[in-house]
Amino acid sequence: MEKILANWESLSVSSGALRFLDTNLRGIGQVMFQDNPLSGALFLAAIAWGSYAAGTPQVAIAGVLAVIVSNLTALWLHVESEPLHSGLYGFNGILVGLALATFLAPGPLLWVYVILGAAVSVVVMLATTNVVKPWGGALTFPFVLTTWLLLLATYGFSGLAGTALPSGAVVTAFQPYKANPLQLIDLGNGVILSISQVFLKGSGISALLLLAGLAVSSLAAAAFALGGAVLAVLTAHLFGAESDLITGGLLGFSPVLTAIALGTVFYRPSWRVVAYAALATVFTVIAQAALNVALTPFAIPALTAPFVLVTWLFLLPRQRLETVAPAANDVEKPVAGA
Amino acid sequence: MEKILANWESLSVSSGALRFLDTNLRGIGQVMFQDNPLSGALFLAAIAWGSYAAGTPQVAIAGVLAVIVSNLTALWLHVESEPLHSGLYGFNGILVGLALATFLAPGPLLWVYVILGAAVSVVVMLATTNVVKPWGGALTFPFVLTTWLLLLATYGFSGLAGTALPSGAVVTAFQPYKANPLQLIDLGNGVILSISQVFLKGSGISALLLLAGLAVSSLAAAAFALGGAVLAVLTAHLFGAESDLITGGLLGFSPVLTAIALGTVFYRPSWRVVAYAALATVFTVIAQAALNVALTPFAIPALTAPFVLVTWLFLLPRQRLETVAPAANDVEKPVAGA
Amino acid sequence: MEKILANWESLSVSSGALRFLDTNLRGIGQVMFQDNPLSGALFLAAIAWGSYAAGTPQVAIAGVLAVIVSNLTALWLHVESEPLHSGLYGFNGILVGLALATFLAPGPLLWVYVILGAAVSVVVMLATTNVVKPWGGALTFPFVLTTWLLLLATYGFSGLAGTALPSGAVVTAFQPYKANPLQLIDLGNGVILSISQVFLKGSGISALLLLAGLAVSSLAAAAFALGGAVLAVLTAHLFGAESDLITGGLLGFSPVLTAIALGTVFYRPSWRVVAYAALATVFTVIAQAALNVALTPFAIPALTAPFVLVTWLFLLPRQRLETVAPAANDVEKPVAGA
Repeated sequence: MEKILANWESLSVSSGALRFLDTNLRGIGQVMFQDNPLSGALFLAAIAWGSYAAGTPQVAIAGVLAVIVSNLTALWLHVESEPLHSGLYGFNGILVGLALATFLAPGPLLWVYVILGAAVSVVVMLATTNVVKPWGGALTFPFVLTTWLLLLATYGFSGLAGTALPSGAVVTAFQPYKANPLQLIDLGNGVILSISQVFLKGSGISALLLLAGLAVSSLAAAAFALGGAVLAVLTAHLFGAESDLITGGLLGFSPVLTAIALGTVFYRPSWRVVAYAALATVFTVIAQAALNVALTPFAIPALTAPFVLVTWLFLLPRQRLETVAPAANDVEKPVAGA
Repeated sequence: MEKILANWESLSVSSGALRFLDTNLRGIGQVMFQDNPLSGALFLAAIAWGSYAAGTPQVAIAGVLAVIVSNLTALWLHVESEPLHSGLYGFNGILVGLALATFLAPGPLLWVYVILGAAVSVVVMLATTNVVKPWGGALTFPFVLTTWLLLLATYGFSGLAGTALPSGAVVTAFQPYKANPLQLIDLGNGVILSISQVFLKGSGISALLLLAGLAVSSLAAAAFALGGAVLAVLTAHLFGAESDLITGGLLGFSPVLTAIALGTVFYRPSWRVVAYAALATVFTVIAQAALNVALTPFAIPALTAPFVLVTWLFLLPRQRLETVAPAANDVEKPVAGA
Repeated sequence: MEKILANWESLSVSSGALRFLDTNLRGIGQVMFQDNPLSGALFLAAIAWGSYAAGTPQVAIAGVLAVIVSNLTALWLHVESEPLHSGLYGFNGILVGLALATFLAPGPLLWVYVILGAAVSVVVMLATTNVVKPWGGALTFPFVLTTWLLLLATYGFSGLAGTALPSGAVVTAFQPYKANPLQLIDLGNGVILSISQVFLKGSGISALLLLAGLAVSSLAAAAFALGGAVLAVLTAHLFGAESDLITGGLLGFSPVLTAIALGTVFYRPSWRVVAYAALATVFTVIAQAALNVALTPFAIPALTAPFVLVTWLFLLPRQRLETVAPAANDVEKPVAGA
């Protein structure tokens, strides 16, 4: 594996086209913090399968278009090479493309929206990185902010309509998940879909491809993703969250990202770090439920905002925590130092 | 008094248990900016009396549990000793505990919530302090953010229900307070309860205990608390605020904190400072009314957010105001420098 | 022209009263980034005409009162002389005065509100400048924040009532603008009113006076204002925005400010800058539509928040963009350096 990647790397250096392909694949990999083209390729397979299985192939196309537009925008803006080639200007773009095509109806203006959103996500990435560099990376905040504005605006534009947007109706009574030994399979389903929902997909096969993509790059990342999903589903169940949200993975995708970020990317591993990451993961479930409620009047989805909020809160104290030093090769460094 | 405190201090140094008790009492005192265990003890008496009188003893218990959990969490996170012993990692925790037990129905999950919220409030305290240290302290922002997320999430959790949470219904017509010489006593009541509502209590005896707790540590703080409450009630009355909000002290507790903070803690006293603090106090009443309206769709209380917002706005210009230098021994220094 | 201004400048230096008049005129000019008393005088004429034509002379009076109160507050707070004399402590104040008198019914408390808002806007200006100085100026954020709080609070105060405030009702179906060669005049109207709405006016004559005020100070600013308005109206039309919003200039005033700011004030001119400013202008239309929706539950207007948000996002990357260095004499420098 390492040899293949080394060969690929030397090929990429020799060809502008391959370098650009490599940059886009790494951009997809960076959605789950993996600066690795093979991870990106497996994640792309997960997206393609999930979109095909859901009968919405335009979603995968929008994602690919968006990551390309993002990286072209970054080139036009003369960003530094190292973070660009690590995919750091692509991961927000692909998420913008996937989210817009998931929540909006197909049509010519959708593609205008995807291109506009992908380009703006790069500006927001540069802006956010400048603000947060003293303590961490931009995470998926550029994706969240850009997509929220674009989705909110559709309610004022007759040319763009939502198909999957939540309604702004008042919160009503819901059906909490009932514990039942026979239904443990449902909880397991919730764990799996918590992973695929990171890419807005509800597909078990996509989840397996994503776990494979994590594992080829970092076994620890795959383990924290799975552990985070289990912890999130159990926490949501303990507090009596809505059954459909738990089993659909909709309360677990942000905690999965929190667990990977705090457990494997930003801090050196230790039991203290595991406990700290677990506390953050549990609180991300709270934040997800809270934002679901808070965004109801606006009829937009929370996206990965709970992950961004909680991970920022738990990253900020870092410089004060004596024994929790940053790892030498963390993904965040290129962002902060770029 | 000073001798008693000096004796207590030497006792605290000699014993880990007494030091921890001292830290927790100072944490309660820091809710109103007093780094003083006797203030904390009197504030605790005010909380205990207010909870007992309202028939909700669990509120006081939740507050005590929360401040202990907060300080244990701070120890686990290896925070610096000086701010820890000054109670700076406890005051947000006790407010989280009091608020959760005030707004949510009793039950096993309430206690899980109190422990989780108290622990997270320490992380948010460290995070906020890192962001705001160029211009001031974290104030009660960690309490506000943590409690808002926990309360919002209850609308998505069947295991936790609100008893005292405001409803999300549309704002309707209300009954403004009518000026009437015979009802001056009502305005006086509003002044007193504005002080006790800092700890979420509507009790005149609690208010007197709180004033006593302030006075043993700082007569100026007690005077600014009372002056701030009077100014807030008069301002709310001038603009025609709702009668029940004025007489219940619900528009005055944030201005009381603003008055203490700007008048006695962060700046050297002078008539300019008094005028500046008065402007901030009046604007805190506006901010309180504004946030009450803005939070209606989310059905959560404003807590002390108006105090935090306005005090931050009025602290930020400090470094530009020539003649308004910070006091030598301000409470904020340990936070900012920690 | 230059000679007149030079004469005026030497007169201003010699007389405290003329200096104060000059400061207030420059404050009005700074609403559209012009540190020029003649621009301010022409803008004032635009305000006066727009208020007179709309039958609301109190709006112009509130604006003048507010800019005076703002500058007196700044003097009282001992701000530095250079930014004060450049009008940087007045432009938020006049907007607060205009907005309060536009959206609230006349009455004694309106004038209390105008004075309070104008004074607080200076504190918020100092606070915001301290936070954002690493990357740019405060823009009109102090106006937006102060006015939002004051307007929100009116829903809790019986003494202040709105006349022109939007209602908090649920967003409903609307009539998008229908393209039609015969109605091109309507689009042209939208372009013109996009300029006058910067000062909350719907008047073509006011728009011409504003363009004249820009042109006497900077032809580039006038050109970018007009170009920004055209681009905004076309973008809004492309996405199918509501007819009345387009033709009334209500989707164009924030983009006009974005275009002037990014095109002429903060960056050196080049085609790259024009393209970058155009992208920002288009995205400001999206942000305007988004904030219109997001603020519906709160029944307050977006004011210039879309301009502030997008301009900050597009300014923040500056230090990373190799070939886009700041101009030598940009308006922002005095703010940041003050």
